[in-house]
Amino acid sequence: MTSPLQGIKVLDLTRFIAGPHCGMILGDMGADVVKVEKKGSGDDSRHFPPFQGGESLYGMALNRNKRSMTLNFRDPRAQELLRDMVRQADILLENFRPGTMEQMGCGWKELSAINPRLIMTRLSGFGQDGPYAQRPGFDGIAQAMSGLMGLTGSPDGPPYLAGTFYIDYMTAMYGVTATLGALNARHLTGKGQMIDVSLLDSAVSLLTTAIPTQLNKGETLTRTGNRDRYSSPANVFKTASGDFVLLLSGTNPLFRRLADAMGQPELVVDPRFATVDARLRNAAAIESIVQAWMSTRDTDAVLALIGNAGVPCTKVATIDEVVENAQLRHRNQIVEIDHPVAGKVSTAGVTMKLSDTPLEIRRPPPTLGQHTVDVLSDWLSLSSSRIRDLMDDAVV
Amino acid sequence: MTSPLQGIKVLDLTRFIAGPHCGMILGDMGADVVKVEKKGSGDDSRHFPPFQGGESLYGMALNRNKRSMTLNFRDPRAQELLRDMVRQADILLENFRPGTMEQMGCGWKELSAINPRLIMTRLSGFGQDGPYAQRPGFDGIAQAMSGLMGLTGSPDGPPYLAGTFYIDYMTAMYGVTATLGALNARHLTGKGQMIDVSLLDSAVSLLTTAIPTQLNKGETLTRTGNRDRYSSPANVFKTASGDFVLLLSGTNPLFRRLADAMGQPELVVDPRFATVDARLRNAAAIESIVQAWMSTRDTDAVLALIGNAGVPCTKVATIDEVVENAQLRHRNQIVEIDHPVAGKVSTAGVTMKLSDTPLEIRRPPPTLGQHTVDVLSDWLSLSSSRIRDLMDDAVV
Repeated sequence: MTSPLQGIKVLDLTRFIAGPHCGMILGDMGADVVKVEKKGSGDDSRHFPPFQGGESLYGMALNRNKRSMTLNFRDPRAQELLRDMVRQADILLENFRPGTMEQMGCGWKELSAINPRLIMTRLSGFGQDGPYAQRPGFDGIAQAMSGLMGLTGSPDGPPYLAGTFYIDYMTAMYGVTATLGALNARHLTGKGQMIDVSLLDSAVSLLTTAIPTQLNKGETLTRTGNRDRYSSPANVFKTASGDFVLLLSGTNPLFRRLADAMGQPELVVDPRFATVDARLRNAAAIESIVQAWMSTRDTDAVLALIGNAGVPCTKVATIDEVVENAQLRHRNQIVEIDHPVAGKVSTAGVTMKLSDTPLEIRRPPPTLGQHTVDVLSDWLSLSSSRIRDLMDDAVV
Repeated sequence: MTSPLQGIKVLDLTRFIAGPHCGMILGDMGADVVKVEKKGSGDDSRHFPPFQGGESLYGMALNRNKRSMTLNFRDPRAQELLRDMVRQADILLENFRPGTMEQMGCGWKELSAINPRLIMTRLSGFGQDGPYAQRPGFDGIAQAMSGLMGLTGSPDGPPYLAGTFYIDYMTAMYGVTATLGALNARHLTGKGQMIDVSLLDSAVSLLTTAIPTQLNKGETLTRTGNRDRYSSPANVFKTASGDFVLLLSGTNPLFRRLADAMGQPELVVDPRFATVDARLRNAAAIESIVQAWMSTRDTDAVLALIGNAGVPCTKVATIDEVVENAQLRHRNQIVEIDHPVAGKVSTAGVTMKLSDTPLEIRRPPPTLGQHTVDVLSDWLSLSSSRIRDLMDDAVV
């Protein structure tokens, strides 16, 4: 056994981010993931910039460790091929609008009838049922509708989307998790099942205290900028170099270390700042003392003094700094892959480290339909002449 | 089989967010999760506000579907009990600073020797090795150091942390995923393994195109406010009611629908806006046209006109609106649990829907040490007098 999902076959029919990341993680874990794309244009993310050698770096970021084949989904012969592949599959991933798979004769009822061991994982904006099920859903819509966006930014400014599609990624991970849970159950029952995860549900799972604060306390959480809700001082400060530094020292032991490092040990006995509660009530006062101290020191001096005292702090990094980060380099998190068309492409490494079955990038992101022939031959044992016919008829 | 992880035993030694959420997801999937807490004070998150009936709503948000027992980790007899429990466990979760488990005689070498089937999942700020391994790491530090924070906010304003601890939650999900991957491998090999996931590595997995844009294109991604990087118009707009509305209509079909809904169909043939590329080059111009249209209409009218046209858009919701959201209510995502001390507490529901082995909230979040006696009797078959001795000696 060299990888945790060795021998597991996945049909990945998904587009954009949440679905493809879900498939990619299964691929990182060693599954045989076949990305089934719309003949002609493929996954929409293939058309998002930036490009290198005509290939989308955006699409590449979500599709390593997969093979690509194309299908003309509207052709009944393609739908039949898809069902034939489902007979061989352990897992099918899809993120079409609810009802689309049913229209292709590939709903859960049909697919589980032809392969009772199949796990069908459906990712969508709002879930397979309910009043919003048919609405178009994207990451930003879920950030906004879940309240998370409204909690991001300053009280006196607009709400902000986060700097990445984090709800897409979270939904991907809930999709993977549910799929692996179903795989565990299948070891014991022999039966697959259907999974339904959505962007909106996933977003709401990240609200921490917002729901009980609203419904039990009757208080509506709002934006606090970078000021932590639960402890102080914990905020972003500007140094004399003009950089932003994030500092988290709200607990009593950390606050003591900070006060010492700043050469102001008397702060810990100041009644305004002596306890967690007191500091939270006087957050503006303690933060302005920290800001005054930072304003006269450059970033390196600040990080050395505070960081060496064991207080969590870091410069708010820019991407040119991130790619040089010594820890990330040590952990092999910034790597280069060799793409058949685009050449060398830098990307994030594999995220999860498993001691006995380590993950690796076994395949670069595929070009559109790169493996159509291989997969039809591998999975379905179709002859080359049969494959040629399907291609001539634009079925695949 | 009524739940996907039925019969799986988990020792959850974690504190704060990433580790506890990892354990909670395993609990949601039906594992028997025992939260092992420091005798006296317990998980640090028990002391974060807000409180209800003296119990932290913050801690509760991360610990349902677990039982709690306490251990005096510094007592060698407690460490011995822990090793005894490890003999019975399938999974151990820990997020101490790297090296702490080793100091307790509970490193991977010791634990895998006494239980070769054990999966030991270690979550940390920076990973188990590397130059930053011993630094204190929290969600915000990872958001800042990974570059994600620097990408959040306006170009002319400060960087922002997102409105939730999303790197903690992502790391939790990588931890769950790796654990379930290892569980799948164990079905075939009979052997457990050690898993190492970190906040910083997890954060970097969300950078999408930032790494290749830096290293292949030589361009450093920066904050764009709410303006989408890949298509336009896709931004936040303000309505006549004073609300923020997020609108995503960058693709050609969506832009056509938007233009029609706005009563300005001529926009789609305007050379500035006729293609995806053209609109991206003229994002400010098309967005100011959309903003002008929104400025004269109230939120309901905007959502009706644009939403009914099938264009993704939504009000940036406040939490009082989120808890009333019809889709979330339909999907059972806002639920009430009955806590033994705090009484009725509202919280997020279970996120993943599995057709055959549905998840459920079987247990409210436990009070500190609520199940010490139960667990010592269940897992280790200790007699009541032996348990009483351990309690009298403050070992548990």
